[in-house]
Amino acid sequence: MTGLDEHAARLDAEDMLAPMRDRFHVPDDMIYLDGNSLGLMPKSVAARLGSVIGAEWSEGLIRSWSDAGWFDLPMRVGDRIAPLVGAGAGEVAVGDSTSVNLFKCLAAALNANVGRSVILAEGSNFPTDSYIAQGLARLVPGVELKFFAAEEDPLAAIDSEVAVLLLSHVDYRSARVRDMAAITAGAHARGALVLWDLSHTTGAVACDLKAANVDFAVGCTYKYLNGGPGAPAFAWAHPRHLADLSQPLSGWMGHAAPFEFVRDYVPAERARRFVCGTPQILSLSALDAALSVWEDLPLEVLWSKSRRMTSFFVDAVEELAAGRGLMLASPRDPAERGSHVSFDLEEGGFELMQALAARKVIGDFRAPCTVRFGFAPLYLRFAEVLAAARHIAEILETRSWDDDRFRVRGAVT
Amino acid sequence: MTGLDEHAARLDAEDMLAPMRDRFHVPDDMIYLDGNSLGLMPKSVAARLGSVIGAEWSEGLIRSWSDAGWFDLPMRVGDRIAPLVGAGAGEVAVGDSTSVNLFKCLAAALNANVGRSVILAEGSNFPTDSYIAQGLARLVPGVELKFFAAEEDPLAAIDSEVAVLLLSHVDYRSARVRDMAAITAGAHARGALVLWDLSHTTGAVACDLKAANVDFAVGCTYKYLNGGPGAPAFAWAHPRHLADLSQPLSGWMGHAAPFEFVRDYVPAERARRFVCGTPQILSLSALDAALSVWEDLPLEVLWSKSRRMTSFFVDAVEELAAGRGLMLASPRDPAERGSHVSFDLEEGGFELMQALAARKVIGDFRAPCTVRFGFAPLYLRFAEVLAAARHIAEILETRSWDDDRFRVRGAVT
Repeated sequence: MTGLDEHAARLDAEDMLAPMRDRFHVPDDMIYLDGNSLGLMPKSVAARLGSVIGAEWSEGLIRSWSDAGWFDLPMRVGDRIAPLVGAGAGEVAVGDSTSVNLFKCLAAALNANVGRSVILAEGSNFPTDSYIAQGLARLVPGVELKFFAAEEDPLAAIDSEVAVLLLSHVDYRSARVRDMAAITAGAHARGALVLWDLSHTTGAVACDLKAANVDFAVGCTYKYLNGGPGAPAFAWAHPRHLADLSQPLSGWMGHAAPFEFVRDYVPAERARRFVCGTPQILSLSALDAALSVWEDLPLEVLWSKSRRMTSFFVDAVEELAAGRGLMLASPRDPAERGSHVSFDLEEGGFELMQALAARKVIGDFRAPCTVRFGFAPLYLRFAEVLAAARHIAEILETRSWDDDRFRVRGAVT
Repeated sequence: MTGLDEHAARLDAEDMLAPMRDRFHVPDDMIYLDGNSLGLMPKSVAARLGSVIGAEWSEGLIRSWSDAGWFDLPMRVGDRIAPLVGAGAGEVAVGDSTSVNLFKCLAAALNANVGRSVILAEGSNFPTDSYIAQGLARLVPGVELKFFAAEEDPLAAIDSEVAVLLLSHVDYRSARVRDMAAITAGAHARGALVLWDLSHTTGAVACDLKAANVDFAVGCTYKYLNGGPGAPAFAWAHPRHLADLSQPLSGWMGHAAPFEFVRDYVPAERARRFVCGTPQILSLSALDAALSVWEDLPLEVLWSKSRRMTSFFVDAVEELAAGRGLMLASPRDPAERGSHVSFDLEEGGFELMQALAARKVIGDFRAPCTVRFGFAPLYLRFAEVLAAARHIAEILETRSWDDDRFRVRGAVT
């Protein structure tokens, strides 16, 4: 047993969250380091979908909007997410995609910051954030989108025209964590509101929206929340914005009285007005069931396991694959790092990820040269983290992807 | 056997579509006349969801975006819907809610009709259509929303400012069918584009978007398409608009190269650019499976069964419940009527629907005084239609909802 093995064994033995793994379906022999793209399936999902299609839809039919609580589901599911991001009950609305929720919140922020019309966004953000801001700027005359570069201080770019600053809390590529409270305070001091994208935060990294005095937030539920492919996203606004909150996707399910069928839109109370059209109940129910895993979970333990896990991975890779060309592309300080780790590899990054996949070690590749590994603290073991680092080292040692036979061998390893 | 019984028996015997009923889960003893709100569950859904959660998500995980075809699903499902509305392959994009798709298409229409900025809408349309148009008008300075009244000729209300006319093909309340080709031609002659909402059309009423030279259309899939609660909606644009089509919900899944992660939005080819964020795969897969029912279906037979069914219902109710205060609120001519039938009842409409529900006859009530019955031609039998009419007549004869005991008796009938 090497020092790394002993270390992994000790970390696993000390892991209070270890029993949680059993609540997920883990494919045989797979080391899944892509829970930051699509989380594993919680076992609770199958039973819930079974009852949605076996009873609520098939038997209850239209009556299930009230009897099975479908109508309230967007806010009920939001209440499950709220504690993970430092939001209160009734403040988080779930439904639609992250993209659609970005649109709602950007428009709401522009509306709330009268007299300013610039969206300031990071050019290196996950693309849909930029695309949606571009869509809004194309649509609304006078609204302008400005980008700042990754190395720039976003606060320095805020002038008197900036209505809203759009940022990711955890960068999708590097995992760099931004200082939410400081940036929000700085933006407020310059007269701008802030919309935080929590897609790579929620469920793996500590976040306290209210303590940080944030204005708006959106987040994804199919990554660390394990809600299933394309699971509905969430939107949040600080309670101080809710009374006057106006968002343009004012569909009937966000109306104060949807079943009165009146002609004119009257927003529902508080965050319910983020809800737009009829929610996709199958996907939303699966997410609801997936979130049952989080009940009574010691969140501080989870956040700290995430940091320990990424640190252990960095250490293991740098020890085992030293001199193989991998350059850490994530912050070295775990306090500045989210729950994934990226390395740049000048040559062969794509091939490395393919060779790993052939060994059932799943991560992902981001062009031009980044290999990315996600560490979902709810279900991963330190022993797997170490095994993944060993696979990486072995593959890079032989650079065996040039050899066709490797893939075959790898696939049955 | 009465004349009505014989008539129902003959119509059922002649019904070429009768075998289709067996492809649905039909609750015991229920007469479900609300398929225009939420369709019955096709049996094909359970197996498909089983394989999505039992294999595609749980085992395939992130690889299923390519291996299980998740990425292409919005357009593949669209191709299943296309023949039902007279659209071509690759023209229909599925995802998001009807409300969100209304927003995309209204904005696209305004963008396409340069120099005009008024949305003209029917004030009595299903409310979400109005609410979304109001949301767009609130958001975009210069865009104005004008309503015309139900009894007004929409064409007469088109002046040189109207960019787009927003209409429902089948009215959600009365089932009145508008003449799609004539109104579209008239709007074009006045310089306006037309966006048709096909929510109460698709899957029950004939529709030929291209023959009618329509500009834009959206539709719902959880009614006559039986896609499940809140199933994703669809958007369509005439091919002549696709090359320049610009819609503001420009999320990454509608990008020309989503996995290149470039900063600036470049729309995907043709209708794919209607796709916004990551699609909700569980709901979308259920819809895909539900649509398998439509393969090789003789559509003309279906449209004609719908007309026969609503006519038979009107005849039966008017014969059996004559003098009980029901006034037909739908067009009498089946050619002008969609697949549901509404009656106004000055007093007791809500109570009638409750009493019917206690007998497991499900329709719905629309305030202030409309009772509404939907006839999904895919799975209903004429014998059920007649039985429903008999229940209505019996309940109205005794107006027995004043008697508490009635409900108990009714519930076990």
